[in-house]
Parts: sequence; C-alpha cells; structure tokens
Amino acid sequence: MASTAGQVIKCKAAVAWEAGKPLVIEEVEVAPPQAMEVRLKILYTSLCHTDVYFWEAKGQNPLFPRIFGHEAGGIVESVGEGVTDLAPGDHVLPVFTGECKDCAHCKSKESNMCTLLRINTDRGVMISDGKSRFSINGKPIYHFVGTSTFSEYTVVHVGCVAKINPEAPLDKVCVLSCGISTGLGATLNVAKPPKGSSVAVFGLGAVGLAAAEGARIAGASRIIGVDMNPNRFSAATEFGVTEFVNPKDHDKPVQEVLAEMTGGGVDRSVECTGNVDAMISAFECVHDGWGVAVLVGVPHKDAVFKTHPMNFLNERTLKGTFFGNYMPRSDLPNVVEKYMNKELELEKFITHEVPFAEINKAFDYMHRGEGLRCVIRMDA
Amino acid sequence: MASTAGQVIKCKAAVAWEAGKPLVIEEVEVAPPQAMEVRLKILYTSLCHTDVYFWEAKGQNPLFPRIFGHEAGGIVESVGEGVTDLAPGDHVLPVFTGECKDCAHCKSKESNMCTLLRINTDRGVMISDGKSRFSINGKPIYHFVGTSTFSEYTVVHVGCVAKINPEAPLDKVCVLSCGISTGLGATLNVAKPPKGSSVAVFGLGAVGLAAAEGARIAGASRIIGVDMNPNRFSAATEFGVTEFVNPKDHDKPVQEVLAEMTGGGVDRSVECTGNVDAMISAFECVHDGWGVAVLVGVPHKDAVFKTHPMNFLNERTLKGTFFGNYMPRSDLPNVVEKYMNKELELEKFITHEVPFAEINKAFDYMHRGEGLRCVIRMDA
Repeated sequence: MASTAGQVIKCKAAVAWEAGKPLVIEEVEVAPPQAMEVRLKILYTSLCHTDVYFWEAKGQNPLFPRIFGHEAGGIVESVGEGVTDLAPGDHVLPVFTGECKDCAHCKSKESNMCTLLRINTDRGVMISDGKSRFSINGKPIYHFVGTSTFSEYTVVHVGCVAKINPEAPLDKVCVLSCGISTGLGATLNVAKPPKGSSVAVFGLGAVGLAAAEGARIAGASRIIGVDMNPNRFSAATEFGVTEFVNPKDHDKPVQEVLAEMTGGGVDRSVECTGNVDAMISAFECVHDGWGVAVLVGVPHKDAVFKTHPMNFLNERTLKGTFFGNYMPRSDLPNVVEKYMNKELELEKFITHEVPFAEINKAFDYMHRGEGLRCVIRMDA
Repeated sequence: MASTAGQVIKCKAAVAWEAGKPLVIEEVEVAPPQAMEVRLKILYTSLCHTDVYFWEAKGQNPLFPRIFGHEAGGIVESVGEGVTDLAPGDHVLPVFTGECKDCAHCKSKESNMCTLLRINTDRGVMISDGKSRFSINGKPIYHFVGTSTFSEYTVVHVGCVAKINPEAPLDKVCVLSCGISTGLGATLNVAKPPKGSSVAVFGLGAVGLAAAEGARIAGASRIIGVDMNPNRFSAATEFGVTEFVNPKDHDKPVQEVLAEMTGGGVDRSVECTGNVDAMISAFECVHDGWGVAVLVGVPHKDAVFKTHPMNFLNERTLKGTFFGNYMPRSDLPNVVEKYMNKELELEKFITHEVPFAEINKAFDYMHRGEGLRCVIRMDA
C-alpha cells in the first residue's frame, strides 16, 4: 500500500467553476476510496468532445463546480473495501461507463450497457453514498461521468476501471478510454465488415477515423469517407480511407452518390456525426440483401429518424452502438493488446500534447477543429 | 421423359379474367419449357394473401387475364434445355422468388434477393423470351410471380424450383412455398431468439403464427402474441404463443405494455402485419442492449417509419426480411426435412381443403378471415 492509502490526498486538479469559463488549476482534497471504489493517480488524460459539450452546458442542467475528463491512463494508488481484482500499482484506464458483472446487461454477453454503471452525465457524486470525493476547503467539487480525470488523483467505481498490460505506454493507450474505442468497436464489433468489403464512414473526426481504422484492420477493400469539411480528407488517408465524398459537391442525396459508386450500395456504413440526416443517409446507402449500418454519433434530443420501411424489408440492418459495444473491464485490455502487437495504430490519433498547466489549450484546439486528440501530461 | 415432353399440354387452369371477379376454370394450353425452364404438374396449391391482393388489383397496374397461385407442391413433367439439376419425376416446390446461384446476391450467402429472379409482381411473362407459356385459343394468359400454380400444369424458371424429399407429402409441404417459410425464417434465420428468451409476434395470421412456431422451435420461453382481433388468441396457443396483448385493451402504447410485462422489453420481436405503427411498436418494444426487431409485413407504399434515433443508439437492432431469408433452392429442402423429422408442425396451418373446381371458396374463406391456409387439390 502507498503511504497515502486511507489518507486524504492534496493534489492539483483543473476545476470548471462555471459553464464555458477556462478551467482553473486548483489544489483539491481527494478523499480515500470507499467500498468498491479505487483511487487512481492519473498520468495522462486527453480531451474528448463530450467534456467540452458538458463544460459548455448548452441544453442540459449545469452542474458546477465540476472536474471534467474521462479519457485517461493511470495507476491504482489505493483500493476501498471489497475490491479484490485491482491492487495498488496496477496500470489502468478509467472508463465513463462501467461493468458491474452482475446485472442483466453484463450477464447478457450481447450488451455493454450495465444497469448499475451506465453513463450518467447528470450525476456528480459517487453511487455508494451520493457524495463527492473532491473538495476545496470543505466545499464539494462535482465528479463527471464517474471519472473526473482532469485531476492528479481521482476516485472511480471499481466497475469503471480496466486493468491493462503494465508495459503499455499510458501516454498512448489513454485515448482508448472513450472516443477511439467507440469508433473502432463500432466497426469491429458491430458492423463487422467482411474482408474485401466496402465501408462508408460518415464524419471524419477522431471517432470516425477510429471507425475507418477498424475497417482497415478488418481488411475492407474500399473505405469511403464522407464529410462536409474537405480539410479532413488528406489526413484521413493515414487511417485507411481510400475515397472521399463531400455531400456538398453533389446535387443528389449522398446515399445515391454512394450507391452509384458501389454498384448498389456499400456493404457497411458507420455514422459518427450524430446528425439525423447523416444517419438516414448512412442507413439508406447500404446495399440491399446484406447491408448493415451502424449509428455511433449521439443525436439531438428532438431528432426523428425517418425512412421508408421497404428499406428495411429489402434486408438492410440498422444497429446502434454505445462505446463500440466494448465491455470496459472484459474487453479494453484486449484492445490495448491490439495496440501492443501493432495491429492497431494509436500514434496517428494523437496530434497534440500539452502540460497539465496548459489544459485550456486543449479546449482551444478542439474549438478550432485542429487535430484529433490532445494528450495532457499530468506531471508536467 | 413423359410422353407429353416437348408437346403443348391441354389442362385445366383457374383463370382470373378481371380484377376481383371469381376465377373461371378453363382449358388452357401450356407450352413446353424453354431453356432453363421446367414444366410442373401441380398436385396441391394453397391460397396466400398476396394472390388475393393482386387479384383485387387495388393500387397496382392490373394485368389480366392472369393465372394466380404461388404456394404449391408438384412433380417435374419435363425440363428445358440446359436444365441439369432437375429431371422429370422430381418432387418440387415452386417459389415466387428465385436463386440463380450466379448473381452478387446469390453469391453473398447473406442475401436471398437474387438479382435475376427476385419477385416481380408486374411481370406476367417468362424472362427468357418475354412471352407467356399459357394460352387459350392462341390468346396469351399472363403468369403471376413466375409460378401460376392455379393450373394443372405450369412453366417455371429452374431457379424458382426447390427439389425436395420425394417422401414428403405434397398436400402438407406445399404451404412452405411462401407464407409459412416467410414467418418461420424471420424468426429462425433473422431474429434468432436464444433458448429461453422472450419473443413478441405482431399479427397472428398464418405468417405471424409461423413466426411463433419458429420461436417455439428455437426454445423461446415466452411468446407474446399481439393482435387487435381477440378471436385469433385461442388458436394461437397451438403455435406456442404463451401470452396475448390486444393493443385496444390498453391506454398506453403497446410497446410500453410489453416493456412492463418483460422488465424492459422483449428479447426479439417479429412484425407480420405490414402496418407501419405496428412496425414502430415492434421496434420500440425490444430491450435495449440486445433487442432485435424483424420486419416481415409489407408496408403501404407511402408509409414512413419514424423513431427517435436514441432507440438505435441504445443498442437495439432493426432488420427486415424477405421470404424469411431462405434461399429457395438451397434452403427449402432443409425446411421440408424439419417437417419430416417432426421438428416443424404444418398440419395446424392447414385449416381448409377444397377441390380445384371450388377454388373460389378459398378466396371466400380468406375474405372472411376464416382459418389459415386452404389447400386446393388439383386432382379433385
């Protein structure tokens, strides 16, 4: 056990005091982990669009002050009562959704939507006692999606922690906590393109490019990137994208353009924008008889998906996925192994790196649409 | 070869001279099969709703005079040039859709929507020469979906003929040509309910009951029948249906009723009505994380399927199927074997039987919603 076990730890955290205002590095107190919780020393964290969305607090109940962050790599500092499969020193990835291994979802093998630990963006406290583990001068600071990785130390439910190969470089595999696994799994676990097939990817941000990377790994022969922003095309070739379609360049719906390019439709499509019109196009562009479309991007709450039901009757399949259907504890260690054995490339997703003190720069890069992932070094 | 091979055969056929008018038994001339065609002696045929729909000619281009009929069992009388895998005397089921074994669909293994021989309800002639093989006094009578089984003899493309076990009773297995296989395959091939799972079936006509029969064979523990007509409930218990829901008995949407009955949703659903509201309910009633809904019923041409995309994102799957995803030539012989080894029960689907001379009675039964399948004996 570390000498800090059972003690309150004082450390630095980037606190969001108000919606949309720059984070402030503060000294926070981090309480010891309670039953079924673990306290992690975070070494690297990266910024995902979901952090920015809830930090801006547009369209949802604001919950501040709060510590954001959910893509990260770290080391277990200490464990609470009842934790048996993690120990201090273990290398881990905290995850914004969990795997209790006991509910109907965890037992189903088909689902990763754990009843107990499924993502909850409204909750700012720990499940066990409804309290925060973070405080400044006794005033609680809220958690975010159970991870709050923009802190040198954080407390996480044991069901939201994936124990990984200790030889894996945490500054690389930290990006597997969320976006990259989401896109990769959407293709590998859900769309499952056969070798030699054609795959359309809608939206060439980090998640879409991870979906393309999945198609490359699966051996797809054509990977067609669809995006309104042509600046994204050249970088996308690194991720296996072989062709590009900008819907703005065509007078007809993009699903018709794709059908013409592919003799009736692509074999698989993966939608990573969350725009409902793109979802409809992604579904209608798959080939009849065998086409499978997978929705990844999160839609607006008032969005309505509309299509003629004959598009289904003609043997098309539409599925949605959450976190690429990966079960955090059972599956993420194997995704890390895919990186270790050089099947999966992660370096190309990491376009920026900043020291923790400059975390707000990561927000700036994302606002400007610059790059894919910015890794934040906690020790710098 | 039969002595009739290569000759025009004069025989009886039930001719539809006009939309919606009773069929008339006429003496017709049936030309010999051309290249890649076979001429069949039909022994039993049954009436399916699709025959009635096109006979009524509401909403589509009328094509008369025409010989309807597409569920049947018969024996090969003679074969045309190039036919190598069928010979006179073979017991067969003609099918309204085909399997050329050469197109992208037939080669895909995932699809049964053959490019060459996919169902075509507008075409009233043979593919090879654009002509009919039926005539009365030299005047052509149109075919229907390539089968026209309301005739003692008919000519069918070889790709639309399934060769089956000659010991199978044709007066029973004839119903596998269309509706029963459609429902059965929707469950067994597409919904694939795991043993012990819950399955909702929307619409308890012949196709829906065949879907329930599939769920029974798959070992589903709960089979919930949904229908507006409570008269269908008692008979449905024979097909393994364990519970019934009449949407008219509830103030809330039926998907909510089903979710409450099943702790969040059924594992699988199969929609057999074609009503778009039922389709939406059938999709929204499946459990998040793993639920799969399968659409079978053919929708109105102006129907629009609408749902909130989060219903997909929460890991629900929606698929459609055509002819239960069975490939006619490759798969139907095995469905016949399921009947032969008593896994599949067909007798309970056959509620009426009439001699060919009284074929219009079969239409009356269907109009009155009486029974499931009426088998027409051609030799009586």
